[in-house]
Amino acid sequence: MSLVPLKDDLPSFLYQYLPAAAAGNASQKPFVTLTYAQSLDSRISKGKGLRTTISHPETKTMTHYLRYKHDAIMIGCGTALADDPGLNCKWAPAGKTSSTSSSPRPVIIDPQGKWDFEGSKMQQLFREDAGKPPVIVVRDLGSILKRHPDATYVSAPSSPAGRFDWLTLMLLLKSEFGFESIMVEGGALVINQLLSRPDVVDSLIVTVGAKYLGSEGVEVSPPVGEVNLRNVQWWRGTVDTVMGAKLDSR
Amino acid sequence: MSLVPLKDDLPSFLYQYLPAAAAGNASQKPFVTLTYAQSLDSRISKGKGLRTTISHPETKTMTHYLRYKHDAIMIGCGTALADDPGLNCKWAPAGKTSSTSSSPRPVIIDPQGKWDFEGSKMQQLFREDAGKPPVIVVRDLGSILKRHPDATYVSAPSSPAGRFDWLTLMLLLKSEFGFESIMVEGGALVINQLLSRPDVVDSLIVTVGAKYLGSEGVEVSPPVGEVNLRNVQWWRGTVDTVMGAKLDSR
Repeated sequence: MSLVPLKDDLPSFLYQYLPAAAAGNASQKPFVTLTYAQSLDSRISKGKGLRTTISHPETKTMTHYLRYKHDAIMIGCGTALADDPGLNCKWAPAGKTSSTSSSPRPVIIDPQGKWDFEGSKMQQLFREDAGKPPVIVVRDLGSILKRHPDATYVSAPSSPAGRFDWLTLMLLLKSEFGFESIMVEGGALVINQLLSRPDVVDSLIVTVGAKYLGSEGVEVSPPVGEVNLRNVQWWRGTVDTVMGAKLDSR
Repeated sequence: MSLVPLKDDLPSFLYQYLPAAAAGNASQKPFVTLTYAQSLDSRISKGKGLRTTISHPETKTMTHYLRYKHDAIMIGCGTALADDPGLNCKWAPAGKTSSTSSSPRPVIIDPQGKWDFEGSKMQQLFREDAGKPPVIVVRDLGSILKRHPDATYVSAPSSPAGRFDWLTLMLLLKSEFGFESIMVEGGALVINQLLSRPDVVDSLIVTVGAKYLGSEGVEVSPPVGEVNLRNVQWWRGTVDTVMGAKLDSR
Protein backbone atom coordinates (compact mmCIF):
# COMPACT_ATOMS: atom_id res chain seq x y z
CA MET A 1 0.00 0.00 0.00
CA SER A 2 1.53 3.28 -0.99
CA LEU A 3 1.56 6.40 1.14
CA VAL A 4 -0.21 9.69 0.52
CA PRO A 5 2.24 12.58 0.06
CA LEU A 6 3.89 14.12 3.12
CA LYS A 7 2.20 17.40 4.06
CA ASP A 8 4.43 20.33 3.09
CA ASP A 9 4.51 21.96 6.50
CA LEU A 10 5.26 18.80 8.51
CA PRO A 11 9.08 18.68 8.11
CA SER A 12 9.52 22.20 9.50
CA PHE A 13 7.05 21.49 12.31
CA LEU A 14 8.82 18.25 13.22
CA TYR A 15 12.38 19.51 12.86
CA GLN A 16 12.99 20.58 16.46
CA TYR A 17 11.80 17.17 17.69
CA LEU A 18 14.07 15.09 15.46
CA PRO A 19 17.56 13.69 15.98
CA ALA A 20 19.08 16.05 13.39
CA ALA A 21 18.25 19.02 15.64
CA ALA A 22 20.47 17.46 18.32
CA ALA A 23 23.34 16.52 15.99
CA GLY A 24 26.76 17.25 17.42
CA ASN A 25 25.52 16.33 20.87
CA ALA A 26 28.20 13.96 22.12
CA SER A 27 25.84 12.05 24.44
CA GLN A 28 26.47 8.38 25.14
CA LYS A 29 22.73 7.93 24.86
CA PRO A 30 20.97 7.69 21.53
CA PHE A 31 18.35 10.36 20.73
CA VAL A 32 15.02 8.81 21.72
CA THR A 33 11.72 9.87 20.15
CA LEU A 34 8.52 8.54 21.69
CA THR A 35 5.68 8.57 19.19
CA TYR A 36 2.17 7.17 18.95
CA ALA A 37 -1.34 7.95 17.72
CA GLN A 38 -4.23 8.16 20.16
CA SER A 39 -7.92 8.94 20.13
CA LEU A 40 -9.22 11.92 22.13
CA ASP A 41 -9.84 9.48 24.98
CA SER A 42 -6.15 8.43 24.87
CA ARG A 43 -6.76 4.98 23.44
CA ILE A 44 -4.25 3.55 20.98
CA SER A 45 -6.59 0.74 19.93
CA LYS A 46 -10.16 -0.41 20.43
CA GLY A 47 -8.89 -3.47 22.26
CA LYS A 48 -5.81 -5.65 22.66
CA GLY A 49 -4.66 -6.90 19.28
CA LEU A 50 -7.31 -4.94 17.39
CA ARG A 51 -5.74 -2.82 14.69
CA THR A 52 -7.64 0.44 14.82
CA THR A 53 -7.64 3.35 12.41
CA ILE A 54 -7.23 6.47 14.50
CA SER A 55 -5.91 9.09 12.15
CA HIS A 56 -5.86 10.34 8.56
CA PRO A 57 -3.52 8.61 6.05
CA GLU A 58 -1.35 11.77 6.09
CA THR A 59 -0.21 10.94 9.63
CA LYS A 60 0.72 7.44 8.51
CA THR A 61 3.02 9.13 6.03
CA MET A 62 4.40 11.19 8.92
CA THR A 63 5.17 7.96 10.80
CA HIS A 64 7.16 6.67 7.84
CA TYR A 65 8.96 10.02 7.58
CA LEU A 66 9.87 9.67 11.27
CA ARG A 67 11.12 6.15 10.64
CA TYR A 68 13.31 7.54 7.86
CA LYS A 69 14.88 9.91 10.40
CA HIS A 70 15.84 7.25 12.97
CA ASP A 71 18.42 4.43 13.08
CA ALA A 72 16.20 2.08 15.04
CA ILE A 73 12.53 1.58 15.82
CA MET A 74 11.54 0.01 19.13
CA ILE A 75 8.34 -1.78 20.16
CA GLY A 76 7.34 -4.08 22.98
CA CYS A 77 6.74 -7.78 22.33
CA GLY A 78 3.03 -7.33 23.13
CA THR A 79 2.69 -5.11 20.09
CA ALA A 80 4.90 -7.41 17.99
CA LEU A 81 2.70 -10.37 18.90
CA ALA A 82 -0.64 -8.55 18.59
CA ASP A 83 -0.06 -6.50 15.45
CA ASP A 84 2.75 -8.30 13.54
CA PRO A 85 4.01 -4.93 12.28
CA GLY A 86 6.48 -4.46 9.43
CA LEU A 87 8.27 -1.44 10.93
CA ASN A 88 10.03 -0.56 7.70
CA CYS A 89 10.13 2.83 6.03
CA LYS A 90 8.12 3.42 2.85
CA TRP A 91 8.83 7.13 2.65
CA ALA A 92 11.70 8.59 0.60
CA PRO A 93 12.67 12.13 -0.34
CA ALA A 94 11.47 13.41 -3.72
CA GLY A 95 13.31 11.73 -6.58
CA LYS A 96 14.40 8.77 -4.47
CA THR A 97 12.77 5.44 -3.80
CA SER A 98 12.52 3.83 -0.40
CA SER A 99 15.04 1.09 0.23
CA THR A 100 16.11 -1.25 2.98
CA SER A 101 18.91 1.14 3.88
CA SER A 102 16.42 3.91 4.64
CA SER A 103 14.46 1.69 7.02
CA PRO A 104 15.22 1.71 10.74
CA ARG A 105 16.45 -1.44 12.46
CA PRO A 106 13.58 -2.98 14.46
CA VAL A 107 14.27 -3.48 18.18
CA ILE A 108 11.84 -5.77 19.99
CA ILE A 109 11.67 -5.58 23.79
CA ASP A 110 10.98 -9.20 24.59
CA PRO A 111 12.18 -10.08 28.12
CA GLN A 112 10.99 -13.69 28.00
CA GLY A 113 11.66 -14.35 24.34
CA LYS A 114 7.99 -14.79 23.40
CA TRP A 115 8.08 -13.30 19.94
CA ASP A 116 9.23 -15.32 16.94
CA PHE A 117 10.81 -13.65 13.91
CA GLU A 118 9.97 -16.76 11.87
CA GLY A 119 6.78 -16.21 9.89
CA SER A 120 6.50 -12.54 10.84
CA LYS A 121 5.85 -9.57 8.60
CA MET A 122 9.34 -8.34 9.50
CA GLN A 123 10.83 -11.55 8.16
CA GLN A 124 8.80 -11.24 4.98
CA LEU A 125 10.02 -7.66 4.43
CA PHE A 126 13.60 -8.70 5.18
CA ARG A 127 13.37 -11.46 2.59
CA GLU A 128 11.96 -9.01 0.06
CA ASP A 129 14.87 -6.65 0.81
CA ALA A 130 12.32 -4.11 2.09
CA GLY A 131 13.26 -4.03 5.77
CA LYS A 132 16.07 -4.76 8.20
CA PRO A 133 16.22 -7.78 10.50
CA PRO A 134 15.43 -7.16 14.17
CA VAL A 135 17.43 -6.87 17.33
CA ILE A 136 15.59 -8.77 20.06
CA VAL A 137 16.27 -7.67 23.63
CA VAL A 138 15.83 -10.48 26.15
CA ARG A 139 16.65 -10.95 29.82
CA ASP A 140 18.50 -14.19 29.45
CA LEU A 141 20.04 -15.41 26.22
CA GLY A 142 19.86 -18.96 27.57
CA SER A 143 16.08 -18.86 27.79
CA ILE A 144 15.36 -18.31 24.11
CA LEU A 145 13.51 -21.33 22.77
CA LYS A 146 13.83 -20.63 19.07
CA ARG A 147 16.75 -18.61 17.79
CA HIS A 148 16.46 -17.37 14.28
CA PRO A 149 19.72 -17.02 12.31
CA ASP A 150 18.68 -13.66 10.78
CA ALA A 151 17.67 -12.05 14.08
CA THR A 152 20.16 -10.63 16.57
CA TYR A 153 19.65 -11.35 20.26
CA VAL A 154 20.99 -9.23 23.06
CA SER A 155 20.47 -9.46 26.78
CA ALA A 156 20.11 -6.47 29.05
CA PRO A 157 20.19 -6.23 32.84
CA SER A 158 16.76 -6.11 34.47
CA SER A 159 15.31 -5.24 37.85
CA PRO A 160 14.26 -7.96 40.33
CA ALA A 161 10.69 -7.30 39.10
CA GLY A 162 11.89 -8.28 35.64
CA ARG A 163 11.90 -4.86 34.01
CA PHE A 164 14.70 -3.46 31.96
CA ASP A 165 16.19 -0.19 33.03
CA TRP A 166 15.42 2.05 30.10
CA LEU A 167 18.51 4.23 30.33
CA THR A 168 20.90 1.28 30.59
CA LEU A 169 19.13 -0.34 27.67
CA MET A 170 19.39 2.73 25.44
CA LEU A 171 23.10 3.13 26.25
CA LEU A 172 23.65 -0.53 25.44
CA LEU A 173 21.85 -0.23 22.10
CA LYS A 174 24.07 2.67 21.11
CA SER A 175 27.31 1.04 22.23
CA GLU A 176 26.53 -2.40 20.76
CA PHE A 177 24.80 -1.41 17.51
CA GLY A 178 25.78 2.21 16.97
CA PHE A 179 22.20 3.48 16.99
CA GLU A 180 22.39 7.26 17.23
CA SER A 181 18.61 7.59 17.26
CA ILE A 182 15.77 5.34 18.37
CA MET A 183 12.08 5.88 17.70
CA VAL A 184 9.76 4.16 20.17
CA GLU A 185 6.39 3.30 18.64
CA GLY A 186 4.63 1.41 21.43
CA GLY A 187 2.69 -0.29 22.77
CA ALA A 188 0.93 1.13 25.78
CA LEU A 189 3.11 -0.66 28.35
CA VAL A 190 6.30 0.79 26.89
CA ILE A 191 4.81 4.27 26.32
CA ASN A 192 3.38 4.48 29.84
CA GLN A 193 6.76 3.65 31.34
CA LEU A 194 8.73 6.04 29.15
CA LEU A 195 6.41 9.03 29.72
CA SER A 196 7.99 9.42 33.14
CA ARG A 197 11.56 9.18 31.87
CA PRO A 198 12.74 12.62 30.72
CA ASP A 199 16.28 11.27 31.19
CA VAL A 200 15.64 8.78 28.39
CA VAL A 201 13.11 10.43 26.06
CA ASP A 202 14.27 13.43 24.01
CA SER A 203 11.09 14.11 22.09
CA LEU A 204 7.43 13.26 22.17
CA ILE A 205 5.32 13.27 18.99
CA VAL A 206 1.66 12.38 19.55
CA THR A 207 -1.05 12.27 16.92
CA VAL A 208 -4.52 12.91 18.35
CA GLY A 209 -7.30 11.58 16.15
CA ALA A 210 -10.70 13.28 16.30
CA LYS A 211 -12.64 10.31 17.62
CA TYR A 212 -13.28 8.34 20.80
CA LEU A 213 -12.45 4.64 21.04
CA GLY A 214 -14.23 4.02 24.32
CA SER A 215 -13.38 2.82 27.78
CA GLU A 216 -12.62 -0.77 26.70
CA GLY A 217 -9.75 0.39 24.51
CA VAL A 218 -6.02 0.11 25.20
CA GLU A 219 -5.05 3.24 27.07
CA VAL A 220 -2.06 5.52 27.37
CA SER A 221 -1.89 7.22 30.78
CA PRO A 222 1.20 7.25 32.98
CA PRO A 223 0.80 5.31 36.25
CA VAL A 224 3.08 7.82 38.00
CA GLY A 225 0.51 10.62 37.84
CA GLU A 226 1.09 14.09 36.45
CA VAL A 227 3.62 14.52 33.63
CA ASN A 228 4.31 18.02 32.38
CA LEU A 229 5.61 18.98 28.97
CA ARG A 230 7.59 21.85 27.48
CA ASN A 231 8.44 23.11 23.98
CA VAL A 232 4.90 22.23 22.98
CA GLN A 233 3.75 22.81 19.41
CA TRP A 234 0.59 21.64 17.65
CA TRP A 235 0.25 20.86 13.97
CA ARG A 236 -3.19 20.77 12.37
CA GLY A 237 -3.88 18.12 9.82
CA THR A 238 -7.00 17.54 7.78
CA VAL A 239 -8.85 15.99 10.71
CA ASP A 240 -6.17 15.26 13.31
CA THR A 241 -3.72 17.26 15.30
CA VAL A 242 -0.12 16.34 16.10
CA MET A 243 1.63 17.52 19.24
CA GLY A 244 5.39 17.83 19.45
CA ALA A 245 6.88 18.31 22.93
CA LYS A 246 9.68 17.53 25.35
CA LEU A 247 9.11 15.79 28.67
CA ASP A 248 9.64 18.19 31.53
CA SER A 249 12.16 17.02 34.13
CA ARG A 250 10.53 16.52 37.48
CA MET B 1 -9.99 36.90 39.57
CA SER B 2 -10.18 38.64 36.24
CA LEU B 3 -9.84 36.92 32.89
CA VAL B 4 -7.06 37.29 30.36
CA PRO B 5 -8.32 38.75 27.05
CA LEU B 6 -10.17 36.50 24.62
CA LYS B 7 -7.89 35.42 21.79
CA ASP B 8 -8.80 37.30 18.61
CA ASP B 9 -9.27 34.25 16.42
CA LEU B 10 -11.43 32.26 18.85
CA PRO B 11 -14.86 33.77 18.05
CA SER B 12 -14.58 32.95 14.34
CA PHE B 13 -13.25 29.45 15.15
CA LEU B 14 -16.08 28.80 17.61
CA TYR B 15 -18.89 30.34 15.56
CA GLN B 16 -20.04 27.21 13.74
CA TYR B 17 -20.29 25.34 17.06
CA LEU B 18 -22.41 27.93 18.85
CA PRO B 19 -26.19 28.34 19.19
CA ALA B 20 -26.20 31.49 17.03
CA ALA B 21 -25.15 29.40 14.02
CA ALA B 22 -28.34 27.36 14.46
CA ALA B 23 -30.65 30.33 15.03
CA GLY B 24 -33.95 30.09 13.20
CA ASN B 25 -33.97 26.35 13.75
CA ALA B 26 -37.48 25.73 15.09
CA SER B 27 -36.48 22.64 17.08
CA GLN B 28 -38.32 21.80 20.29
CA LYS B 29 -34.93 20.89 21.73
CA PRO B 30 -32.52 23.51 23.00
CA PHE B 31 -29.14 23.75 21.28
CA VAL B 32 -26.77 21.65 23.42
CA THR B 33 -23.03 22.26 23.55
CA LEU B 34 -20.89 19.70 25.36
CA THR B 35 -17.62 21.23 26.52
CA TYR B 36 -14.75 20.28 28.81
CA ALA B 37 -10.98 20.48 29.19
CA GLN B 38 -8.89 17.33 29.31
CA SER B 39 -5.27 16.32 29.53
CA LEU B 40 -3.70 14.34 26.68
CA ASP B 41 -4.59 11.21 28.64
CA SER B 42 -8.26 12.29 28.68
CA ARG B 43 -8.36 13.13 32.39
CA ILE B 44 -10.46 16.07 33.53
CA SER B 45 -8.88 16.09 36.99
CA LYS B 46 -6.06 14.43 38.92
CA GLY B 47 -8.61 12.74 41.16
CA LYS B 48 -12.18 13.07 42.37
CA GLY B 49 -12.77 16.50 43.87
CA LEU B 50 -9.26 17.70 43.03
CA ARG B 51 -9.40 20.94 41.08
CA THR B 52 -6.70 20.61 38.47
CA THR B 53 -5.20 23.18 36.15
CA ILE B 54 -5.18 21.62 32.70
CA SER B 55 -5.00 24.50 30.29
CA HIS B 56 -3.75 28.05 29.76
CA PRO B 57 -5.75 30.97 31.24
CA GLU B 58 -6.82 31.88 27.66
CA THR B 59 -9.03 28.80 27.52
CA LYS B 60 -10.64 29.78 30.83
CA THR B 61 -11.60 32.99 29.06
CA MET B 62 -13.01 30.87 26.23
CA THR B 63 -15.16 29.00 28.75
CA HIS B 64 -16.63 32.27 29.99
CA TYR B 65 -17.20 33.39 26.40
CA LEU B 66 -19.10 30.13 25.82
CA ARG B 67 -21.14 30.75 28.97
CA TYR B 68 -22.02 34.19 27.55
CA LYS B 69 -23.39 32.46 24.46
CA HIS B 70 -25.75 30.06 26.28
CA ASP B 71 -28.97 30.46 28.26
CA ALA B 72 -28.15 27.70 30.72
CA ILE B 73 -25.13 25.80 32.00
CA MET B 74 -25.53 22.21 33.14
CA ILE B 75 -23.40 20.10 35.48
CA GLY B 76 -23.90 16.89 37.41
CA CYS B 77 -24.27 16.97 41.21
CA GLY B 78 -20.95 15.14 41.60
CA THR B 79 -19.18 18.15 40.11
CA ALA B 80 -21.34 20.57 42.10
CA LEU B 81 -20.42 18.75 45.32
CA ALA B 82 -16.74 18.23 44.51
CA ASP B 83 -15.86 21.59 42.97
CA ASP B 84 -18.47 24.04 44.30
CA PRO B 85 -18.31 25.97 41.00
CA GLY B 86 -19.71 29.45 40.45
CA LEU B 87 -20.85 28.86 36.84
CA ASN B 88 -21.37 32.55 36.15
CA CYS B 89 -20.01 34.50 33.19
CA LYS B 90 -17.18 36.95 33.71
CA TRP B 91 -16.67 37.74 30.05
CA ALA B 92 -18.33 40.68 28.32
CA PRO B 93 -17.94 42.24 24.86
CA ALA B 94 -15.56 45.20 24.57
CA GLY B 95 -17.02 48.29 26.20
CA LYS B 96 -19.46 46.33 28.36
CA THR B 97 -19.13 44.86 31.81
CA SER B 98 -20.27 41.41 32.78
CA SER B 99 -23.57 41.30 34.64
CA THR B 100 -25.97 38.78 36.06
CA SER B 101 -28.07 39.01 32.92
CA SER B 102 -25.13 37.82 30.78
CA SER B 103 -24.58 34.75 32.98
CA PRO B 104 -26.25 31.45 32.08
CA ARG B 105 -28.74 29.88 34.47
CA PRO B 106 -27.10 26.96 36.30
CA VAL B 107 -28.83 23.59 35.93
CA ILE B 108 -27.75 20.92 38.40
CA ILE B 109 -28.54 17.29 37.58
CA ASP B 110 -29.18 15.94 41.04
CA PRO B 111 -31.47 12.87 40.94
CA GLN B 112 -31.42 12.26 44.68
CA GLY B 113 -31.29 15.90 45.80
CA LYS B 114 -27.80 15.62 47.32
CA TRP B 115 -26.53 19.08 46.54
CA ASP B 116 -27.42 22.07 48.69
CA PHE B 117 -27.59 25.59 47.24
CA GLU B 118 -27.23 26.98 50.78
CA GLY B 119 -23.63 27.96 51.45
CA SER B 120 -22.51 27.32 47.87
CA LYS B 121 -20.43 29.55 45.60
CA MET B 122 -23.51 29.87 43.38
CA GLN B 123 -25.50 31.27 46.29
CA GLN B 124 -22.71 33.72 47.08
CA LEU B 125 -22.63 34.94 43.47
CA PHE B 126 -26.42 35.20 43.38
CA ARG B 127 -26.38 37.33 46.54
CA GLU B 128 -23.69 39.55 45.02
CA ASP B 129 -25.84 39.95 41.91
CA ALA B 130 -23.08 38.21 39.93
CA GLY B 131 -24.88 35.02 38.94
CA LYS B 132 -28.30 33.48 38.47
CA PRO B 133 -29.95 31.04 40.89
CA PRO B 134 -29.96 27.38 39.83
CA VAL B 135 -32.53 25.00 38.48
CA ILE B 136 -32.11 21.67 40.27
CA VAL B 137 -33.32 18.59 38.41
CA VAL B 138 -34.42 15.78 40.73
CA ARG B 139 -36.26 12.52 40.29
CA ASP B 140 -38.85 13.08 42.96
CA LEU B 141 -39.80 16.50 44.30
CA GLY B 142 -41.05 14.85 47.48
CA SER B 143 -37.61 13.49 48.32
CA ILE B 144 -35.84 16.84 48.65
CA LEU B 145 -34.67 17.24 52.23
CA LYS B 146 -33.79 20.91 52.15
CA ARG B 147 -35.57 23.19 49.73
CA HIS B 148 -34.01 26.56 49.26
CA PRO B 149 -36.38 29.45 48.40
CA ASP B 150 -34.02 30.93 45.78
CA ALA B 151 -33.46 27.65 43.91
CA THR B 152 -35.97 26.17 41.48
CA TYR B 153 -36.67 22.44 41.63
CA VAL B 154 -37.99 20.40 38.77
CA SER B 155 -38.56 16.67 38.46
CA ALA B 156 -37.89 14.72 35.29
CA PRO B 157 -38.89 11.18 34.37
CA SER B 158 -36.15 8.62 34.85
CA SER B 159 -35.43 5.06 33.78
CA PRO B 160 -35.93 2.12 36.16
CA ALA B 161 -32.14 2.28 36.70
CA GLY B 162 -32.64 5.83 37.95
CA ARG B 163 -31.18 7.71 35.00
CA PHE B 164 -32.81 10.64 33.32
CA ASP B 165 -33.47 10.39 29.63
CA TRP B 166 -31.34 13.17 28.22
CA LEU B 167 -33.58 14.08 25.33
CA THR B 168 -36.74 14.26 27.46
CA LEU B 169 -34.84 16.35 29.98
CA MET B 170 -33.59 18.85 27.40
CA LEU B 171 -37.08 19.22 25.92
CA LEU B 172 -38.46 19.80 29.40
CA LEU B 173 -35.86 22.46 30.19
CA LYS B 174 -36.78 24.35 27.04
CA SER B 175 -40.53 24.09 27.54
CA GLU B 176 -40.45 24.91 31.27
CA PHE B 177 -37.74 27.56 31.36
CA GLY B 178 -37.42 28.74 27.78
CA PHE B 179 -33.74 27.77 27.49
CA GLU B 180 -32.86 27.98 23.80
CA SER B 181 -29.28 26.85 24.47
CA ILE B 182 -27.62 24.72 27.14
CA MET B 183 -23.92 24.31 27.70
CA VAL B 184 -22.94 21.10 29.48
CA GLU B 185 -19.70 21.46 31.43
CA GLY B 186 -19.39 18.09 33.17
CA GLY B 187 -18.47 16.05 35.08
CA ALA B 188 -17.19 12.81 33.64
CA LEU B 189 -20.39 10.85 34.30
CA VAL B 190 -22.50 13.35 32.35
CA ILE B 191 -19.95 13.79 29.56
CA ASN B 192 -19.47 10.03 29.09
CA GLN B 193 -23.22 9.53 28.72
CA LEU B 194 -23.74 12.45 26.34
CA LEU B 195 -20.88 11.51 24.01
CA SER B 196 -23.09 8.77 22.61
CA ARG B 197 -26.12 11.04 22.15
CA PRO B 198 -25.89 12.82 18.79
CA ASP B 199 -29.67 13.29 19.06
CA VAL B 200 -29.09 15.52 22.11
CA VAL B 201 -25.66 17.13 21.60
CA ASP B 202 -25.32 19.71 18.82
CA SER B 203 -21.69 20.66 19.35
CA LEU B 204 -18.59 19.40 21.08
CA ILE B 205 -15.83 21.78 22.19
CA VAL B 206 -12.89 20.08 23.88
CA THR B 207 -9.75 21.75 25.16
CA VAL B 208 -6.74 19.43 25.19
CA GLY B 209 -4.01 20.54 27.57
CA ALA B 210 -0.42 19.56 26.81
CA LYS B 211 0.13 17.43 29.89
CA TYR B 212 -0.68 14.03 31.36
CA LEU B 213 -2.61 13.68 34.61
CA GLY B 214 -2.01 9.96 35.06
CA SER B 215 -4.04 6.80 35.34
CA GLU B 216 -5.53 7.70 38.76
CA GLY B 217 -7.26 10.76 37.31
CA VAL B 218 -10.95 11.19 36.49
CA GLU B 219 -11.39 10.01 32.93
CA VAL B 220 -13.53 10.86 29.94
CA SER B 221 -14.06 7.84 27.68
CA PRO B 222 -17.46 6.69 26.44
CA PRO B 223 -18.49 3.26 27.79
CA VAL B 224 -20.32 2.54 24.51
CA GLY B 225 -17.07 2.19 22.56
CA GLU B 226 -16.22 4.04 19.35
CA VAL B 227 -17.70 7.51 18.81
CA ASN B 228 -16.97 9.25 15.54
CA LEU B 229 -16.98 12.98 14.90
CA ARG B 230 -17.57 15.26 11.93
CA ASN B 231 -17.06 18.97 11.14
CA VAL B 232 -13.80 18.76 13.07
CA GLN B 233 -11.64 21.87 13.45
CA TRP B 234 -8.64 22.49 15.69
CA TRP B 235 -7.62 25.79 17.21
CA ARG B 236 -4.07 26.27 18.46
CA GLY B 237 -3.56 28.23 21.63
CA THR B 238 -0.35 29.18 23.35
CA VAL B 239 0.13 25.69 24.77
CA ASP B 240 -3.22 23.94 24.30
CA THR B 241 -5.38 22.97 21.41
CA VAL B 242 -9.17 23.20 21.20
CA MET B 243 -11.24 20.86 19.05
CA GLY B 244 -14.66 21.83 17.76
CA ALA B 245 -16.78 19.01 16.30
CA LYS B 246 -20.21 17.48 15.88
CA LEU B 247 -21.06 13.99 17.08
CA ASP B 248 -21.58 11.66 14.16
CA SER B 249 -24.91 9.86 14.15
CA ARG B 250 -24.44 6.12 14.42
